Amino acid sequence: MSVINKYVVLIKRPMGKTKLSDFAVMESELPSIKEGEVQLKTLCFSLDPYMRARMNDIESYAECFKLNEALRGHAICRIEKSNHEDFKEGNIVLSSTGWQTYANLKPNLVHSLPASPEELFILPEDIKPSLFLGALGMPGLTAYHGLLKIGDPKPGEVVVVSSATGTVGSMVGQLAKAKGCRVVGIAGGPDKCQFAVETLGIDACIDYKSKTLAKDLQTACPDGIDVYFENVGGQVLDAVMPLMNLSGRITVCGLISWYNAFSTLGEKHFKPGQILARSKAFIHLLLGVNKLPIFMLRTLGKRLKVQGFIIQDHVDEYAVFLQEVLPLIRADQIKYKESIVEGIENAPLAFGNMLSGRNIGKTVIEI
Amino acid sequence: MSVINKYVVLIKRPMGKTKLSDFAVMESELPSIKEGEVQLKTLCFSLDPYMRARMNDIESYAECFKLNEALRGHAICRIEKSNHEDFKEGNIVLSSTGWQTYANLKPNLVHSLPASPEELFILPEDIKPSLFLGALGMPGLTAYHGLLKIGDPKPGEVVVVSSATGTVGSMVGQLAKAKGCRVVGIAGGPDKCQFAVETLGIDACIDYKSKTLAKDLQTACPDGIDVYFENVGGQVLDAVMPLMNLSGRITVCGLISWYNAFSTLGEKHFKPGQILARSKAFIHLLLGVNKLPIFMLRTLGKRLKVQGFIIQDHVDEYAVFLQEVLPLIRADQIKYKESIVEGIENAPLAFGNMLSGRNIGKTVIEI
Repeated sequence: MSVINKYVVLIKRPMGKTKLSDFAVMESELPSIKEGEVQLKTLCFSLDPYMRARMNDIESYAECFKLNEALRGHAICRIEKSNHEDFKEGNIVLSSTGWQTYANLKPNLVHSLPASPEELFILPEDIKPSLFLGALGMPGLTAYHGLLKIGDPKPGEVVVVSSATGTVGSMVGQLAKAKGCRVVGIAGGPDKCQFAVETLGIDACIDYKSKTLAKDLQTACPDGIDVYFENVGGQVLDAVMPLMNLSGRITVCGLISWYNAFSTLGEKHFKPGQILARSKAFIHLLLGVNKLPIFMLRTLGKRLKVQGFIIQDHVDEYAVFLQEVLPLIRADQIKYKESIVEGIENAPLAFGNMLSGRNIGKTVIEI
Repeated sequence: MSVINKYVVLIKRPMGKTKLSDFAVMESELPSIKEGEVQLKTLCFSLDPYMRARMNDIESYAECFKLNEALRGHAICRIEKSNHEDFKEGNIVLSSTGWQTYANLKPNLVHSLPASPEELFILPEDIKPSLFLGALGMPGLTAYHGLLKIGDPKPGEVVVVSSATGTVGSMVGQLAKAKGCRVVGIAGGPDKCQFAVETLGIDACIDYKSKTLAKDLQTACPDGIDVYFENVGGQVLDAVMPLMNLSGRITVCGLISWYNAFSTLGEKHFKPGQILARSKAFIHLLLGVNKLPIFMLRTLGKRLKVQGFIIQDHVDEYAVFLQEVLPLIRADQIKYKESIVEGIENAPLAFGNMLSGRNIGKTVIEI
């Protein structure tokens, strides 16, 4: 019996918002597994905002996705067949196989607590597997490293997090609360803001769609901001900067509001004369006021630290992260929300919806 | 015999470049000294680029200079009269008395090696006193802290420093060479570039006035840039950013190219509709291309750390700095150059010339 693998590829680089026509769902016959390999059947896979950035082929972002290949990302899989002594049929594992229904691979490292989520590892049976795509997966580690290692918040300090109900943002807010900080979130719309305060338990949440965003944020942060966990850029960053306290820290984790606009911008195109040929969103973004001088003057005058990171550089912290956060999940001290979409064919649409902020919580494609 | 103190004040906040009419030279009779006080006669005082930023009354910069008061800064003085047991007439001291010819003050702390350059201290006799305004003073400490504590260069890394022949920049280049780095300077004109390479001993120096600045810098840094010591902002920063290596560090010490333009910009004025009423330089600066998005995307994608500092926060490192750098000066392993201007009346003109980059090395007013 041959096995058919379905997988989603990018057939062209999106300009601005992703369109369904940028993607294609492909099928191919899976080869039979070789010595030392396992055959994985995907149960669900992860959609994450960082993937949008990696669809752009620009100098500014590391390692973009290749066209016409199964898109990469984390997935929860069941071992269907095993030619590897450490795995048995039926084991549920975390893998990096991405947007596809099957995969054969040769695991090179196996741990009960993995050194990194890039390694295939067998999940503990008492935890819902899909959590390893979110709170207990790379997004959780992203929040953990970015907040604690870069933001370094002290008890009593004010932490602001944008995309506060996203997978990373939800964890940032809760980890900052656990540190004894006052936490103010920024999210899109009243439902998300309510979820952030009532379920995640942060102190306040501001709607970025409000026309009085800057004023609302100032009201919510009467003592200024000590740590800003940046997921979005754009007007949210504009609203945050005047409120940063002396010696504040800005963790640059994501810039979702700029990913679409920068979709086709290579270094060589960064000239005013050429950008007129670009999309409306792009022109709107770049023409007008140059905000870099005031940003830098504030960084100097307020002695700010602004630091970017990519979680792939820090996967060696995954085991320590799990040891710390797994007990919190087991004790129900960390809350999470998932937005499940059925069927690999629906992944491109679900991805666009996630980027537009239509869902609360972690977007997972279930197969 | 009464003593007349001459001092320079700011009578209005400069718009753009400083004009002589922004300043006034005042005279007043010095009161007789009280119990515990010393009377200082200024031998020379320091002019530094950071003073321009402090002439602006904007939210973005800490503690601006007050109008109609003697301008602050470091000075070398002789004790004329002493009612304090730790000081004798004739002692040469470092003080913070600024742009004036005399001052009475009550020293509260005295050390042979001071904990900070804000404290009055008696200078060692074998060192030229004015060096304590430059290489051995606050500019030297600025270079030391910013390069070593924030930039944290490793042997073999590439360090780029702007204003490479300025007081701070000269020290940055030499300290980075002492660390085993490849050092590329950026300075204005062939004379300065020659001085940087031949006298300061850095590896290369690029003229920022060149029309091919970006290309010249790329040629001088074929392996990219690991640490950028930022003194200027503007086009130099534009040229540096594409060359930054992964996990690079940007020490934000000064932004001289933007100080003039931001002279009258308060937070409340930062709206496109209002800036049309501002100076030409300002309009030129702010309208056009918004460089913040690409700056932030690079900070993220390249995992950069961008950190501002103000040396006043770190004066407790002064004693350690002196213990380390004083022997290098005594051994002639650190080179320096001074540009001496005679007469307190000439300070406003000399200040403008310094900001325009007309001199090489430390600008000192001798009285």
